[in-house]
Amino acid sequence: MTETRVLTVRTEKREQFVDISAAISEFVRSSGVRKGLLVAFVPHTTAAVTINEGADPSVMKDIGAALGTLVPRDDPRYKHAEGNSDAHIKASLLGSTVHIPIVDGGLMLGRWQSVFFAEFDGPRQRRVNLFLY
Amino acid sequence: MTETRVLTVRTEKREQFVDISAAISEFVRSSGVRKGLLVAFVPHTTAAVTINEGADPSVMKDIGAALGTLVPRDDPRYKHAEGNSDAHIKASLLGSTVHIPIVDGGLMLGRWQSVFFAEFDGPRQRRVNLFLY
Amino acid sequence: MTETRVLTVRTEKREQFVDISAAISEFVRSSGVRKGLLVAFVPHTTAAVTINEGADPSVMKDIGAALGTLVPRDDPRYKHAEGNSDAHIKASLLGSTVHIPIVDGGLMLGRWQSVFFAEFDGPRQRRVNLFLY
Repeated sequence: MTETRVLTVRTEKREQFVDISAAISEFVRSSGVRKGLLVAFVPHTTAAVTINEGADPSVMKDIGAALGTLVPRDDPRYKHAEGNSDAHIKASLLGSTVHIPIVDGGLMLGRWQSVFFAEFDGPRQRRVNLFLY
Repeated sequence: MTETRVLTVRTEKREQFVDISAAISEFVRSSGVRKGLLVAFVPHTTAAVTINEGADPSVMKDIGAALGTLVPRDDPRYKHAEGNSDAHIKASLLGSTVHIPIVDGGLMLGRWQSVFFAEFDGPRQRRVNLFLY
Repeated sequence: MTETRVLTVRTEKREQFVDISAAISEFVRSSGVRKGLLVAFVPHTTAAVTINEGADPSVMKDIGAALGTLVPRDDPRYKHAEGNSDAHIKASLLGSTVHIPIVDGGLMLGRWQSVFFAEFDGPRQRRVNLFLY
């Protein structure tokens, strides 16, 4: 590992996708690393990180709505007493890390790909830990 | 990172799982790398990559059908106007990368494991970027 | 890759989450590696690995129950004849690897994060392959 950085993400709603691609790109460029692997790690259990389309914001709206249909916020069978079981479930469905190759000093994302921090139990101040390997 | 290769995958249906294990194995062997980590990265937002059983093709059929039940192709609530919201949602559920350890110069996959490119909005010509770390 | 270890996990039920955080931490500490990336790889196709809350066991119970609702054990449409299609589907939804940064010689997990082996077709003797990069 050559470089590390902590991104701070301030979410404003209970459920929200925040595009963190520009912050990750800036970290990679400032590191001077030419090739390697960028790992973004979310150290929370009611949030996640995912790669999907950033060009049309309706894509992430549809993803959020679909997750809400699959995993309802309220379910009388939930045993966890904090009212955020849905957020924990969604976090495991999307996962806590994304990995992006670094080539020629930049993120090798596809044309339509952006990186989104996925808030499922906000609003909160969150962190995303970035690492370059 | 020591080696990189771009796999081209030509899909023939809207939804299709393509076993890319042999192509990945050949890349690892030809690299001469004895130990490390293979990362397969899908640079698309309506496709994914996953590891599951390759011995019985009905397993991947069941996975495809289950994803279709969970995320219907048509839903009047979808806001994205391209008719492929389901493909974007499935891509985030499965994820854009898989990681396989390299030991003794080969992929350390389990006995029943194969690596599948997951097409959710084909047919198209797709890419999978392979990296060895 | 500097170190590798195989964890053996003996599951006792068909569906079970086993907290393997302590075993992973011990592996990292005994390796003497100060910084890097821990990869836990599950070489099975009816099991997975995920990071979520370990403090309150009801969180993982809710995750298991939600997966059971999303992916029923019996479905007349399943084609795979072994009666464990649900386990294969859940394995691809959660994924076969987790990645945890190593900083200052320890796992950099968030305060509430634990690492769980996810059994979906037990009881069995299972393996988790640990690698340090």
